[in-house]
Amino acid sequence: MKAKVHVTLKSGVLDPQGKAVGHALESLGFSGVNDVRQGKYIELDLNETDADKARAAVEDMCRQLLANTVIENYSVEIAEG
Amino acid sequence: MKAKVHVTLKSGVLDPQGKAVGHALESLGFSGVNDVRQGKYIELDLNETDADKARAAVEDMCRQLLANTVIENYSVEIAEG
Repeated sequence: MKAKVHVTLKSGVLDPQGKAVGHALESLGFSGVNDVRQGKYIELDLNETDADKARAAVEDMCRQLLANTVIENYSVEIAEG
Repeated sequence: MKAKVHVTLKSGVLDPQGKAVGHALESLGFSGVNDVRQGKYIELDLNETDADKARAAVEDMCRQLLANTVIENYSVEIAEG
């Protein structure tokens, strides 16, 4: 079973990496970019075959390791296969 | 208009960051994790109001800056609002 995790900065938290990407895009000639926010995308391949248990395990992983819940949000998507 | 970009390593390209996350999960007691791959997730806020033009611009940004197309794949999703 595959799990897809998005970890994004909470709104209001400064994102210097995103700002740097925004400035780089501007200097490459891309206008009309108001804001850039950069997050992490993690794909996990799990042995677990029960979708609910897989989701619970991955949410646990997010809280313990993958996301810093003080400044980051996470979302978990479980996919078959 | 918002654009969501996923940048992931091509299959076959080694992912030491993903491997490190996998080992860290194991040492935290999470068993049954076969593989971890880590990518980037970028949210862009664009002035463009035409979805097709927005997609074309963002794909251009991916090729020029956001992704290293030698070792990375990218996918673009355009969302209203």
